[in-house]
Amino acid sequence: MVSITQLFGSYGANCKLDSFNDEMKFFAKMSILDWCGVAYAGKKEPVSKIVSQMVMEELGVNQARIISTGHKVSSRGAALANGATGHALDYDDTHFLFVGHPTSSALPAALALGEELDSSIEDILLAYMAGVEVSTRIGHILGYSHYNAGFHQTATSGSFGSTIVASKLLNLNESQTINALGLVSTRASGIKSQFGTMGKPFHAGMAASNGIEAAKLSKLGFVSRDDGIECEQGFFQTHGWNKEIPPRAIENLGTEFLFPEIKYKFHACCHGLHSFLEALDELKKVNNFNPETIKEIQIETNPTWLKVCNIEKPKTGLESKFSYKLTAAMSIYGNDTSDLDSYNDGVCFEDKMVSLRDKVNIIPNDKLTDTQSVISINDGSQVIKNTHDLSNKIEKNILENKIINKSVSLLSKSKSELISNMLSKPKSNNVSSLVDCLVS
Amino acid sequence: MVSITQLFGSYGANCKLDSFNDEMKFFAKMSILDWCGVAYAGKKEPVSKIVSQMVMEELGVNQARIISTGHKVSSRGAALANGATGHALDYDDTHFLFVGHPTSSALPAALALGEELDSSIEDILLAYMAGVEVSTRIGHILGYSHYNAGFHQTATSGSFGSTIVASKLLNLNESQTINALGLVSTRASGIKSQFGTMGKPFHAGMAASNGIEAAKLSKLGFVSRDDGIECEQGFFQTHGWNKEIPPRAIENLGTEFLFPEIKYKFHACCHGLHSFLEALDELKKVNNFNPETIKEIQIETNPTWLKVCNIEKPKTGLESKFSYKLTAAMSIYGNDTSDLDSYNDGVCFEDKMVSLRDKVNIIPNDKLTDTQSVISINDGSQVIKNTHDLSNKIEKNILENKIINKSVSLLSKSKSELISNMLSKPKSNNVSSLVDCLVS
Repeated sequence: MVSITQLFGSYGANCKLDSFNDEMKFFAKMSILDWCGVAYAGKKEPVSKIVSQMVMEELGVNQARIISTGHKVSSRGAALANGATGHALDYDDTHFLFVGHPTSSALPAALALGEELDSSIEDILLAYMAGVEVSTRIGHILGYSHYNAGFHQTATSGSFGSTIVASKLLNLNESQTINALGLVSTRASGIKSQFGTMGKPFHAGMAASNGIEAAKLSKLGFVSRDDGIECEQGFFQTHGWNKEIPPRAIENLGTEFLFPEIKYKFHACCHGLHSFLEALDELKKVNNFNPETIKEIQIETNPTWLKVCNIEKPKTGLESKFSYKLTAAMSIYGNDTSDLDSYNDGVCFEDKMVSLRDKVNIIPNDKLTDTQSVISINDGSQVIKNTHDLSNKIEKNILENKIINKSVSLLSKSKSELISNMLSKPKSNNVSSLVDCLVS
Repeated sequence: MVSITQLFGSYGANCKLDSFNDEMKFFAKMSILDWCGVAYAGKKEPVSKIVSQMVMEELGVNQARIISTGHKVSSRGAALANGATGHALDYDDTHFLFVGHPTSSALPAALALGEELDSSIEDILLAYMAGVEVSTRIGHILGYSHYNAGFHQTATSGSFGSTIVASKLLNLNESQTINALGLVSTRASGIKSQFGTMGKPFHAGMAASNGIEAAKLSKLGFVSRDDGIECEQGFFQTHGWNKEIPPRAIENLGTEFLFPEIKYKFHACCHGLHSFLEALDELKKVNNFNPETIKEIQIETNPTWLKVCNIEKPKTGLESKFSYKLTAAMSIYGNDTSDLDSYNDGVCFEDKMVSLRDKVNIIPNDKLTDTQSVISINDGSQVIKNTHDLSNKIEKNILENKIINKSVSLLSKSKSELISNMLSKPKSNNVSSLVDCLVS
């Protein structure tokens, strides 16, 4: 089949004024004159006033900061940029019921709009929790039929979540909030075929920005539908939903929470390596391995991962993120696998690292699920073995330590502590102090 | 079925901080701390820099004007607002192959970005023509299977068209333009269930804004796919496409043009009334009807319209737009049916108008298509008859006169002439002069 993208893209790039015949030019001019009249006359319509008002309020108001540059722009704009930034590394949290990354859109929406409104951390905490609980449940309803049809919940369901976030922060009443969800039903988009491109992290920004837009428009009186999600040809029906509503998605709303089933990434490398790295971390806590005396390391893993992250002799930092053997050696030598900087070209060629790397053997085991692994280390005197399953629940105190360690390595100790303290005293801190930590 | 929109909308509006249990609060704080680290570390990633850069350039630059307020905002923002404004009356052009309104997104994108770049009218004419030709062809490929699946080409295919518009104005090269189309494949959205709400005109703004966003990001180095439209789980496959490519949609691209099959609305009322009003306009040109002596007017129309626009005794301006009988009387009395202001509460109760209205008889005729009508007027001495089919091509000089008349009634004579002159001398006029006419 002809590539439509390329056909029309090349045409657009190469056509010139004299490529168009007089017929085309005549109708173009007619349409322009026609549109001008219709648009001029349409200026008095409520929808024109409302959308214009929302955009006008973005004018030079310096609402919220872009964290990667520190510039203040519209909160819609900051949410778009910061959403993409937060998901750029694909190192953020994941929810298996949501089928994607709930925080990646809800939090940048909360931070951007919260900064505009000078909200407290408590305000955004409430908005964020309401948003991620709703988006987790909507993501769960959309489920794998939506995902397998080609849509990306991070973008689509994320838009509903950030609409709730923004509606809370703007203090929308019930009908305004319902209406905002109805409106975002026609704005939410995002397809999985963008995976592997910048389109994927952009999805988080789109969702964050869509939510702010929908809630602001609804507050200004924009009228959409109060059933936009589930109506005939609404969002669900048009986006691969299998017409089933899993009971957990709608039951006990407000009293039970699905969001706490959230999972975190603790290693800045391919997800396929996380299970064995966890098993190894546990072993390291009770064993003092001497890398020099280790005779062999065996890693058993589900065979599907062998095509994904089994580069035997990685040569670059990027390749090191997809190597069982090298990351095993790095972990034994105490290199911090949660730190992005640990994965560099140099480590691939360190003599001691290469030597230990070549003592690692990878054993496919189809009895293991893709979240399970077994590691066995022959330290010269005995064989020490451990298993891990990423789907197991982690004790809260252990989890908290891991997240604090991760944030220290990514943010610095002082910033991590500052943010932790703000989250402990949410009432007495405002959003802009938190954004300060991310900007500087 | 439970209303999902209302369930989650009410929940969001009503939940409070103490509605959340400690488990939820713990994981919320963990996720926030986790995201902060990941986002902070992600600031160096190319996608973060690119999206941030695009949004940052919107900062206080006063790129383009909102026509309904005159304020300068970002060109993305102006396109969003002006797109909604131009489609607010649903009085703009329509293309049956596109299945929607191609100008409604392409032109506001051209005006907003053109104003930012200080382009000439010639520049935007080229960009606009390339954009509407592409969006007409893509709309045609998506066809009725996309439309019947619930999507609205004005929003979806319009996004591809405005991407071409913006790519031309930004002088993107071939691969950048293809990449921009690939990116907008994940941003394009818009569902038909929003019809009857402000969501419909908003679709035109969404599409206009999406195109500027995609082209700007592509220019800044954002990497998406070069086959985003047609790839496995790309835009086409995920949005109700029937996997057929009508030959006209891809053949003779650049040498033959589909856009000139565009249709215009010349009466500011329900589309169902347009056919007979055209037939009547033709009769009026060669007959001098005396409303006082008319004995009967018969209008034959396709029966489907009787449920749509046959209000026998309209009582409001809005109702008058859906009345065969009253609009026939208005037209005979010389009230301008292309002028929005002609449709008011007063005209519904004018004695002479009501008297003539009651001499009109509507005859359903299922041998007529929904674009055809027959009108017969008994003027007291003879019966004069005419037929009309909206799908017939209109002579260019007649069409031009009609569009000029329409634009005079909507814009004023002086503005209509100013814009016509600019379109005749596109090289020596710039976009901001055209926007001046729309703002003031």
